[in-house]
Amino acid sequence: MAELSLNRAHSIIRKALAKGREAGFKPLSVVVLDTGGHVKAFEREDGAAPGRFGIAHGKAYGAIMLGMAGRAQMARAEQQAYFMAAVNGVYGGQVVPVPGGVLVRDKRGNIVGAVGVTGDTSDNDVIAAVAGIESVGLTPED
Amino acid sequence: MAELSLNRAHSIIRKALAKGREAGFKPLSVVVLDTGGHVKAFEREDGAAPGRFGIAHGKAYGAIMLGMAGRAQMARAEQQAYFMAAVNGVYGGQVVPVPGGVLVRDKRGNIVGAVGVTGDTSDNDVIAAVAGIESVGLTPED
Amino acid sequence: MAELSLNRAHSIIRKALAKGREAGFKPLSVVVLDTGGHVKAFEREDGAAPGRFGIAHGKAYGAIMLGMAGRAQMARAEQQAYFMAAVNGVYGGQVVPVPGGVLVRDKRGNIVGAVGVTGDTSDNDVIAAVAGIESVGLTPED
Amino acid sequence: MAELSLNRAHSIIRKALAKGREAGFKPLSVVVLDTGGHVKAFEREDGAAPGRFGIAHGKAYGAIMLGMAGRAQMARAEQQAYFMAAVNGVYGGQVVPVPGGVLVRDKRGNIVGAVGVTGDTSDNDVIAAVAGIESVGLTPED
Repeated sequence: MAELSLNRAHSIIRKALAKGREAGFKPLSVVVLDTGGHVKAFEREDGAAPGRFGIAHGKAYGAIMLGMAGRAQMARAEQQAYFMAAVNGVYGGQVVPVPGGVLVRDKRGNIVGAVGVTGDTSDNDVIAAVAGIESVGLTPED
Repeated sequence: MAELSLNRAHSIIRKALAKGREAGFKPLSVVVLDTGGHVKAFEREDGAAPGRFGIAHGKAYGAIMLGMAGRAQMARAEQQAYFMAAVNGVYGGQVVPVPGGVLVRDKRGNIVGAVGVTGDTSDNDVIAAVAGIESVGLTPED
Repeated sequence: MAELSLNRAHSIIRKALAKGREAGFKPLSVVVLDTGGHVKAFEREDGAAPGRFGIAHGKAYGAIMLGMAGRAQMARAEQQAYFMAAVNGVYGGQVVPVPGGVLVRDKRGNIVGAVGVTGDTSDNDVIAAVAGIESVGLTPED
Repeated sequence: MAELSLNRAHSIIRKALAKGREAGFKPLSVVVLDTGGHVKAFEREDGAAPGRFGIAHGKAYGAIMLGMAGRAQMARAEQQAYFMAAVNGVYGGQVVPVPGGVLVRDKRGNIVGAVGVTGDTSDNDVIAAVAGIESVGLTPED
């Protein structure tokens, strides 16, 4: 399975942050995880709250660990809150099941990582993540 | 970003406790956290239950980590309980998402810390926190 | 069993901090715990590192939970490191077994709380704690 | 207390990674934390092991929380292993007490953040961190 290079991860972050600024979103925080759910790169904009790493990470981490993007996780949480609570027990409480955790797929459809964005509404966080992922020619699944 | 001095933190606590006594509230506990969510000062009045440090801390800690005061956290918890549960997983179970966690802003609007009050109803806890913060010329966001 | 009042706890902290300033110690952090090991009051001086609450708390907490002051805990840790490690497993990793965790006894010899001081050398931390405790007419066991 | 901007944090990381490549070090991972110990930015070079975020973070986190750089933490761990073990209990097992956790000070001597580097020997990790910090006109304490 291919992995995102640091250069590509960094481009995704920079583009996501630029998208947020263009669109007038609140200061964003963006993480890129590899296919094992491990942190490749992260940036928190000036003015974002200090705890935003954990939220960005939790959105992307659940996406990788379950192979399920944030919107699907939220749907499951709405239907079966106890299931997502149990998932969080298994994964050490590190999953944040809301939009803004976006899977990254290559042209063959393989998952090559995940992006987590937090700072504005969940829907706006997704817009920034998608802009970042598409800017490097990869396919978001949000 | 400026930080609250110990003198100012202590004045906030003393005024919050005085407000509670004046108003006939139950014995209060008041914590002041810095901009990183670390304890600067705390006092628990005689007669308050032993576990009140954790509740006061949890109200203020969530406010700092998310950049979101207690009332906004409660609104989010009412709408999306699983989201605030997940946030608590990320922050080690240290967040108490109810009123009484109050952000402290300076004249330029920057967050310089947070106050957490517990002991009476959540609304009364807020009244005491606000009195403390305003007594040193800073602006509460509850 | 008697408990320290908030007034007395606060006097202990203020005197301990004053002692540290007089003696030219680094900025100190001082906690007072009740007889159940629960936080009664805490202050962290300007310039002290952000994580000092946990260290001050850990020194005093072990003293209360084991009924054994910091020097005795350190002696035990030097002889039997695995025992103090096991104790920390039992107490959730909250014990810091070094000098600066000081038991507070009344005239009849009963434990009425504990003081934890951190910021300078362990021996200087003890000097500040002892000054605070003696200033309110109680007896330190360090 | 001033905080590092994202621009400056990013420059530190880029220069530290460049220094490692120039010097022929193994692939490095570099984190920048703010004055509260919260992640501001992180990058892991291609070829670095997946778990490197936690090590880089742990080096910088202990430096912030204790106000003590990695070399001083290692000296304390060598003398009093049980003390650093206890510190880790207090800080949730998040401290890695070895060189490569470097405090960042401004011209007035105030701590404005910390850098954690991991990937090569601890001494080489320090060389990369120092190069990054000095490249933005700030002062490392390693």
